[in-house]
Amino acid sequence: MYEVSCGWQGDMAFKAEVGGHEIMLDADEAVGGHDQGPTPKPLTLVSLAGCTGMDVISILRKMREPVSWFNVRVQSDLTGEHPKTYTNIKIIYEFKAADGLKDENVRKAILLSQDRYCGVSAMIKKATPIDFEVVYL
Amino acid sequence: MYEVSCGWQGDMAFKAEVGGHEIMLDADEAVGGHDQGPTPKPLTLVSLAGCTGMDVISILRKMREPVSWFNVRVQSDLTGEHPKTYTNIKIIYEFKAADGLKDENVRKAILLSQDRYCGVSAMIKKATPIDFEVVYL
Repeated sequence: MYEVSCGWQGDMAFKAEVGGHEIMLDADEAVGGHDQGPTPKPLTLVSLAGCTGMDVISILRKMREPVSWFNVRVQSDLTGEHPKTYTNIKIIYEFKAADGLKDENVRKAILLSQDRYCGVSAMIKKATPIDFEVVYL
Repeated sequence: MYEVSCGWQGDMAFKAEVGGHEIMLDADEAVGGHDQGPTPKPLTLVSLAGCTGMDVISILRKMREPVSWFNVRVQSDLTGEHPKTYTNIKIIYEFKAADGLKDENVRKAILLSQDRYCGVSAMIKKATPIDFEVVYL
C-alpha cells in the first residue's frame, strides 16, 4: 500500500512525506502563501513526467540506444471554472539528435510507456486527453 | 499554461523543475535507482493531499475555526497488473481534538474541497474512487 502525508506548517505551507523523502509545498503570495515550494496541482504533471520518463529511459537502455541527454516537458492549460482541472496535456520528449538514436525505437519506447506501463498516464487519461511529441534538439 | 520539466540525471534519476522549484525523483535500488528522491507515482497522491489540504485550511481559517495542527494522509493500493494504477484512494484528514473545532464546519470545509474546489480530486476521481475520513487525535 502507498501512503503519503502532508503536515500543515502554517499559512498555506505543507511538508509532504513520501517514501522517506520530504517536499515542501506552498502557495503563491497572492493567495496567502510564501512560495517556499511548488504548489500542489502541477505535482500531478511532475508525477506524469517522471513516471513516463523512467519507463522510456529504461526501455531505451534495454534497446542499447545511446541516450546521453533526455528531458521530459509536460504542458497543460487549466479550466477557468472550479474545480480547475487540466484541459489538454502535452508531453514533449526531448533528446539530443547528435546521439544518433533510432527514431523508430524512441517512438516504440514511448508507446510502450503510454499504452502499457505508465500507471500515471493511464489514470490521468481518464480525466484529460494526453498527446505527445518527440523533439530532437 | 502550466509547464513542468524533468531532466534525466543518469540511471533512473530525474530532476524536476516546477514553478521555480526543483525536486529530485529517483527509483529504488531494486529497479536500478539510488533512492535520491521520491518515486514519481506517489507524487500524484502528494498533489492530491496538498491540493485538498490547502483548500481545507483556507476554508477553516475563513470560518475562524481554531486549527493549531492539521495533517492530511492519503493511502491507496495499486493494481497488480501493468499499467499499475491506484485502486481505492482514502484521504484521512487529521486534526487535534484539543483545538475544540466544530466538526460540522470541518466536514463542510472538506465537502467544499472534495465537491467543488479541489481540481486534483476532480481529475483523480475519474480514474479511482476517493473516500475520506476525519480523525481527531
